[in-house]
Amino acid sequence: MKKVSILMLAGIIMISSVSMNQLNAQNMNEVKQSENRVPAKGFAVHSHDDHFHTYEFSRHAVGDNDVQIEILYAGICHSDLHAAWDEQQEQGLHATYPMVPGHEIAGRVVKTGKNVTRFKVGDYAGIGCMVNACGKCSSCKAGKEQFCENGTVFTYNSIDHYHGNETTKGGYSNNIVVSENFAVRVPENAAIEKVAPLLCAGITTWSPIHFSNVKKGDKVAVAGYGGLGHMAVQYLVDLGTDVTVFDRTEEKRKDAARMGAIRYINVNNKEEMKGLGGTFDFIISTIPANYEPIQYVAMLKMGGEMAIVGLPDKSTLNIADMAFLSQRKVYGSLIGGIKETQEMLDYSVAHGIYPEVEIIKADAAEIDKAWHNVSDGEVKFRYVIDMKTLK
Amino acid sequence: MKKVSILMLAGIIMISSVSMNQLNAQNMNEVKQSENRVPAKGFAVHSHDDHFHTYEFSRHAVGDNDVQIEILYAGICHSDLHAAWDEQQEQGLHATYPMVPGHEIAGRVVKTGKNVTRFKVGDYAGIGCMVNACGKCSSCKAGKEQFCENGTVFTYNSIDHYHGNETTKGGYSNNIVVSENFAVRVPENAAIEKVAPLLCAGITTWSPIHFSNVKKGDKVAVAGYGGLGHMAVQYLVDLGTDVTVFDRTEEKRKDAARMGAIRYINVNNKEEMKGLGGTFDFIISTIPANYEPIQYVAMLKMGGEMAIVGLPDKSTLNIADMAFLSQRKVYGSLIGGIKETQEMLDYSVAHGIYPEVEIIKADAAEIDKAWHNVSDGEVKFRYVIDMKTLK
Repeated sequence: MKKVSILMLAGIIMISSVSMNQLNAQNMNEVKQSENRVPAKGFAVHSHDDHFHTYEFSRHAVGDNDVQIEILYAGICHSDLHAAWDEQQEQGLHATYPMVPGHEIAGRVVKTGKNVTRFKVGDYAGIGCMVNACGKCSSCKAGKEQFCENGTVFTYNSIDHYHGNETTKGGYSNNIVVSENFAVRVPENAAIEKVAPLLCAGITTWSPIHFSNVKKGDKVAVAGYGGLGHMAVQYLVDLGTDVTVFDRTEEKRKDAARMGAIRYINVNNKEEMKGLGGTFDFIISTIPANYEPIQYVAMLKMGGEMAIVGLPDKSTLNIADMAFLSQRKVYGSLIGGIKETQEMLDYSVAHGIYPEVEIIKADAAEIDKAWHNVSDGEVKFRYVIDMKTLK
Repeated sequence: MKKVSILMLAGIIMISSVSMNQLNAQNMNEVKQSENRVPAKGFAVHSHDDHFHTYEFSRHAVGDNDVQIEILYAGICHSDLHAAWDEQQEQGLHATYPMVPGHEIAGRVVKTGKNVTRFKVGDYAGIGCMVNACGKCSSCKAGKEQFCENGTVFTYNSIDHYHGNETTKGGYSNNIVVSENFAVRVPENAAIEKVAPLLCAGITTWSPIHFSNVKKGDKVAVAGYGGLGHMAVQYLVDLGTDVTVFDRTEEKRKDAARMGAIRYINVNNKEEMKGLGGTFDFIISTIPANYEPIQYVAMLKMGGEMAIVGLPDKSTLNIADMAFLSQRKVYGSLIGGIKETQEMLDYSVAHGIYPEVEIIKADAAEIDKAWHNVSDGEVKFRYVIDMKTLK
């Protein structure tokens, strides 16, 4: 079953033509301001097998409720590769080119619309996976804008039905224009070069940890120790839990200890994998490749919960297996809402929790090389592009 | 992956030879009392494709902590068919013949061991899916004897390592001998002819309803409206929830309304299946045949929970689909512990909640015919054998 039809089953309508027309009418003033469009420059791929090229384009005009942000840093997320390489067709997501990826954005406000109250010029701001939603439906009112019933506008490769159906372009660029409601305030004392990945890797792991009410003293596990996993480890250690890390390599064993995990398990080591049944109160799986999730469900205590945030396309759970492992709950989680993202960001900065980043120059060849390494799993733990170096 | 290995992954050891020896030593006195074995008579199949025959055998002697129960009524559960027909080999469960099925038992105490305190001769008593467990492990202490770490002894087709490793024989018979700790007290005012199915169909649905903290006013659904489903509907209506029933036939539509459901949906009717995304706080799936569980997950509200109690062997959930349906929890559930079973039984009798039963005579041909109908799904809603009519 295609993901898009699943979303429709759940009542999540990606694009509603009725609401689209209404909303377009409301925003006609903005759309018409084509003379005020904001020139932008960044990096794009022009087909599924293209390398990066510098690319000039424009952003919609800064509306009354919008902020224009100079992008300082943009994180590279593994899902950028899937999107650009058009590998999400089974999920009902199709690539539109030229594509400017990037949904982990940290920058500084350079212009504000007249109704903007939360930002002033010079403030730091962050943008994550989405740039607009209706704000009126039950999902938006519940602070779950990522499931807007009138169609969330995602940060790139998404139809912006609030702005003439143009295709959104992401953070591998020098600026972005968004509604102030979809920008997150970043404290002035933040380590700004490390902030960008919090907007995706941070919130994606933070959200289920709090949804499951993980608390001090819990026995927890993080399966998959990459960009997402290393954020989960830090949040869980900070909460005072006993953290076990699962990954498939020896290379990260010391990193796990350094970050405060009490145990590291190489899943290829059969001895280490023994005797773990019924151990954990909470498991978060960030594993992006296909695996057998039931082996982790079996490691939960009764009443324990497992959150799935990695998106392998073919991994399944047999429900009879789940019944025999009685009363262990499994659920998926997809990013988080704006209010929750703000809470995560404030908390992360206050507690000094940041991704470990490798900063690269804003150069097409550098980005190509970084993508190659991300694809091969050779990154500790997140690449961030220094957009200020764009020439 | 075989279910038995999953159970082992979870730290649930079906048979531990070490503990078996220790326990055998402790119970040697009982085992040696072969001269006091209790003669019994019932119905057995002698191979996977056999019909029922009357069958004479014996029960272990009544130990100091045991009660002997004259069986008055025995319910017919669909899983009896799977066991007798040896259809659970993939679950690591193998049939031993002759097999006397039956794990829904209501009867009257006719003899008590000298240490028995909870029963006296003449009391009603009920027996469900299990007849012994260690009582000392963490699962037993948590009231989850069905997951005893030293090996639960199930009511039939199970090795009784407390009694010389004899194979247990079930409720399609005139008596049974069990530890008083595995007998449930049945109030004297109970409708005794309807009590037996509570011990499996009742507890299996009661347990997850309470594990998920379902409460008055919740929107809930019962998928699969048979022996288990019709108990779930009654418990949920009694709790004051809005109950929707899903089944694949028109024949039960009126029954659902009569039992208090506000809506009945024929899953083969595409119109009725529309617009249900994000509707329910809780869903219990009792569906025994293969289906697409994701369509029910999509009907949960965010934060809603789905309990799986039916055991189709090939139904799976894609975990990426689950992530896109964010924060809907899915878990399995397998019967319930003894304390919880007692609570369920007391509540059911006090609230007049019983299965709808069709009582048949204790006759091999009658049981054969009933099994045929159960296999074809032609039963409203539970057959019960009147064991007093055994000749």
